[in-house]
Amino acid sequence: MAVDTPFDQRLAACRRRLEEAAADLAVCFPSPNLTYLTGFEESPSERHLLLFVPREGMDAEPTLVAPTMYESQLAALPPSTLELRLWDDEEGPLGTVARTLEDMDVLEDMDVDVRTHASQDADSSANREPTVLVDDRMWATFTQDLRTLLPDAEFGLASAVLEPLRIRKDNLELETLRRAAEIADRVSLEVRERGDELVGWTEAELAAEIERLLAEYGGEEPAFETIAASGPNGARPHHHSGDREIERGDPIVLDFGAFVAADLEGGTARYPGDQTRTIVVGEPPAEYERVHEVVAEAQQAAVEAVEPGVAAEDVDRAAREVIEDAGYGDAFVHRTGHGVGLEVHEAPYIVDGNDRELEPGMVFSVEPGIYLGDRFGVRIEDLVVVTEDGAARLNDSPRGWETGAGSR
Amino acid sequence: MAVDTPFDQRLAACRRRLEEAAADLAVCFPSPNLTYLTGFEESPSERHLLLFVPREGMDAEPTLVAPTMYESQLAALPPSTLELRLWDDEEGPLGTVARTLEDMDVLEDMDVDVRTHASQDADSSANREPTVLVDDRMWATFTQDLRTLLPDAEFGLASAVLEPLRIRKDNLELETLRRAAEIADRVSLEVRERGDELVGWTEAELAAEIERLLAEYGGEEPAFETIAASGPNGARPHHHSGDREIERGDPIVLDFGAFVAADLEGGTARYPGDQTRTIVVGEPPAEYERVHEVVAEAQQAAVEAVEPGVAAEDVDRAAREVIEDAGYGDAFVHRTGHGVGLEVHEAPYIVDGNDRELEPGMVFSVEPGIYLGDRFGVRIEDLVVVTEDGAARLNDSPRGWETGAGSR
Repeated sequence: MAVDTPFDQRLAACRRRLEEAAADLAVCFPSPNLTYLTGFEESPSERHLLLFVPREGMDAEPTLVAPTMYESQLAALPPSTLELRLWDDEEGPLGTVARTLEDMDVLEDMDVDVRTHASQDADSSANREPTVLVDDRMWATFTQDLRTLLPDAEFGLASAVLEPLRIRKDNLELETLRRAAEIADRVSLEVRERGDELVGWTEAELAAEIERLLAEYGGEEPAFETIAASGPNGARPHHHSGDREIERGDPIVLDFGAFVAADLEGGTARYPGDQTRTIVVGEPPAEYERVHEVVAEAQQAAVEAVEPGVAAEDVDRAAREVIEDAGYGDAFVHRTGHGVGLEVHEAPYIVDGNDRELEPGMVFSVEPGIYLGDRFGVRIEDLVVVTEDGAARLNDSPRGWETGAGSR
Repeated sequence: MAVDTPFDQRLAACRRRLEEAAADLAVCFPSPNLTYLTGFEESPSERHLLLFVPREGMDAEPTLVAPTMYESQLAALPPSTLELRLWDDEEGPLGTVARTLEDMDVLEDMDVDVRTHASQDADSSANREPTVLVDDRMWATFTQDLRTLLPDAEFGLASAVLEPLRIRKDNLELETLRRAAEIADRVSLEVRERGDELVGWTEAELAAEIERLLAEYGGEEPAFETIAASGPNGARPHHHSGDREIERGDPIVLDFGAFVAADLEGGTARYPGDQTRTIVVGEPPAEYERVHEVVAEAQQAAVEAVEPGVAAEDVDRAAREVIEDAGYGDAFVHRTGHGVGLEVHEAPYIVDGNDRELEPGMVFSVEPGIYLGDRFGVRIEDLVVVTEDGAARLNDSPRGWETGAGSR
């Protein structure tokens, strides 16, 4: 009966995890969690749009409560094991929310005396102090509504069951992340090959050109603010591309990526590219070649450290050791990487103190950098996927600093 | 000592309202509330960026807890009565959050035995069950952190104290909203004057041209999806501008506006324009002139109904009565208007059932419309500000349907 889409599988896995965690249901809000489970991407708004996922064994289907204006969009979503309940402005959302909570056995029938009802209810324990996991990004205005309806419930965060699922990418996700990485690679190569042409461009113009190319090669909107940081601006990891004109001999940190839509009917899930290269037009400044080499070695060492069972912090350590040994330890001012999926930044974070063990299917950035005050910065970033016995990079464009037609 | 910027005044007003509401503090998250109080606009993220505002009489300053990466941006913010506390990735945010809560007298010193400490504390009542109002848009992950740190606290929503402040615009806000309205007016006039030139354009092309003009005249990004709805598409209030080509005799509903940055140093607060005109290229279809006149009369009647002390729903009624009396009651399918400020849709909503009394400084749209099935729609929208004794429109471009060079 149920067509077994990746989304039905994810909903079923979520229900199993809820049961294992002794939680009664998860409630998601427009967020990457909602997109992950249904294929539906939407911005948060003041209108109640909530996905209720009951634990396994509960006699109710996952249910999406939404304003009527979304009807046609939501009816076309991929998961077949999803019930749709619409509310309109006239009746308001709370009745529909309450009925859904009743059907999921966490809200007593509100018209019945609580004590009488309890004494007749064979399985009344779930009704006493249900455990409800809410979307980590749910707005306080909605959690307050749920707390009012369920005053005796224990509340936790849905990431407790969803993060372990989302952190390992399935085939649909990996295929989409690979396409996003290929687009970033093509743009990276094209910009590098322009070489001398870039002299005299402002950073903002170069960033706009990168975004135009990302779109031309099939990307949707930029996954984050495109960074084109030239000369001394490269020493600021989160520089906003501005009016500075690129001069001959400037190192330029280029950090960009675009979202790419997953190949599925009815849904709108998107996955980002995220890649950094640091190139130089002409001859690099003093010390640059040495710094670029150290960063490249650190990045390579970190990628080589990746395999199942290794702690995330050990990958950070592998990159940091190379940079510290070269005497630039104080100039590597950020973590080595972050997970990438429906969110550009998500678990696992590749950072000191994170002892989470890597698992096959995890995807994250490896992006060490060295930032030298008012002179320049170098960062090299690829996305990698953890495989059964190591890691594979999703990006394969050149990582050197040379530019111009022969630079590949 | 304190330079009295609008933001210092707003922070002080928030503190007074907290005291009046018997609440101990408000905690804001990246949202319009944060922008309102500090001039800082930022998207929500997984990093703790929280504004703590203590009630009046508490011996602590409003405190912004933020990641170190924001230091230079935040140090330049307008309010002088704002303490900045930065945390870095190494130490994490929770220690800084806990210290801030201690300084605001809602968290016991965690290193001290609670009972001993309590018996020494002359003003221990605030420490027992503090009342904390959290940003309506705060993500559950952050409210859970606060609930863990303050297990005995009562939680409410910050809109209880902030909405009554934000609903009355101060001079900085009014000046910015006027500039946004002037830009929309200029674009509206320019499009109208093109007249015959518009025939053959697609709606999407016209919408893109409107957005280009908004930027040319000083607007930032569009405040919402620009609507150019031609012919029968005009009968759908939220039409997405598409491939339909404009034909001679089509009524065209044009609903648009751009954000404009407030004129202030160090902050990034932005306010939107929002204006609708319905124009016709060539001769209008049957019944159109009559419908346009009814909508214009309804809009005029609603604007004339605005004055301090009048209920929001009475403004809706004034527009609706004109349209009902003309026999088009069923074709006016939405509310008459919505408040406009840092958000494009905010309080006060001009809708049946909202008995909120209007106050000087409130700004909202007045936008009645008539939508005739597969034929056409007409909507006319201006923003108005409530004055001491009535209302003033922020828009003054022509409201008629005529187009071409002589149409002003």
